[in-house]
Amino acid sequence: MKSLGKHLLAEYYRCDENAINDVQKVEEALVKAAEIAGATVIGKSFHRFEPYGVSGVVVISESHLTIHTWPEYGFAAVDVFTCGDHVDPMKAHEYLKEVFQTQNATVETILRGVLNIPDLRHKPGGSCITGNCGDKKIG
Amino acid sequence: MKSLGKHLLAEYYRCDENAINDVQKVEEALVKAAEIAGATVIGKSFHRFEPYGVSGVVVISESHLTIHTWPEYGFAAVDVFTCGDHVDPMKAHEYLKEVFQTQNATVETILRGVLNIPDLRHKPGGSCITGNCGDKKIG
Repeated sequence: MKSLGKHLLAEYYRCDENAINDVQKVEEALVKAAEIAGATVIGKSFHRFEPYGVSGVVVISESHLTIHTWPEYGFAAVDVFTCGDHVDPMKAHEYLKEVFQTQNATVETILRGVLNIPDLRHKPGGSCITGNCGDKKIG
Repeated sequence: MKSLGKHLLAEYYRCDENAINDVQKVEEALVKAAEIAGATVIGKSFHRFEPYGVSGVVVISESHLTIHTWPEYGFAAVDVFTCGDHVDPMKAHEYLKEVFQTQNATVETILRGVLNIPDLRHKPGGSCITGNCGDKKIG
């Protein structure tokens, strides 16, 4: 079945609590995971919560990666949404699972944009118009 | 079933092509949708692609909203991932569906972080540590 995108929804149980509470480590891991999947990183936004927990997003030319962590439960919810045939979201998932020393993981793949159109293709080029690529901090 | 988060995966078909190709409109819509859901926006990152298409993420204290659009197909893939009981992701979805003049929409709700823990709760407070909240532009 031809689709515009592949969306991996992964749940990581019994992770290393310190690793998933370290916003810098989590950010580095997600960026690296995007690169390992063959994606092009065009933006990111990471946040650490008080007293614990990290939320982060990496925007890629081919869609996005997100993570939300609950160190108090050793749990992380990871999404890897990719478009196009040149990226492999499973590689990102496999890398992240290892980095966070995940003891148990589940992953579900959902096809996004299954359209009844011959010659369905991801946005051509996928190049970002620089003038509109600003990331903004709120508050 | 008690879970840490609710994740709505929505597919919008036959949207207004101009609306989903306008990065500013899409950004405003996602921020407004987050607010309507009762969420607190803490970061965002939006990008327009050449020759068409928009990708964007709004990070909220309660997780995230994302959108990827294919104006050439009148299609948009929207995710609304929320944690905690005070936010209603369905309200965000209903708003976005209207804003983009979506003719057909599907939505699927997936529970994230279903843990066998009594008194399961979202990260307390959910307040962002300002020093680590910087959004970064790549390249």
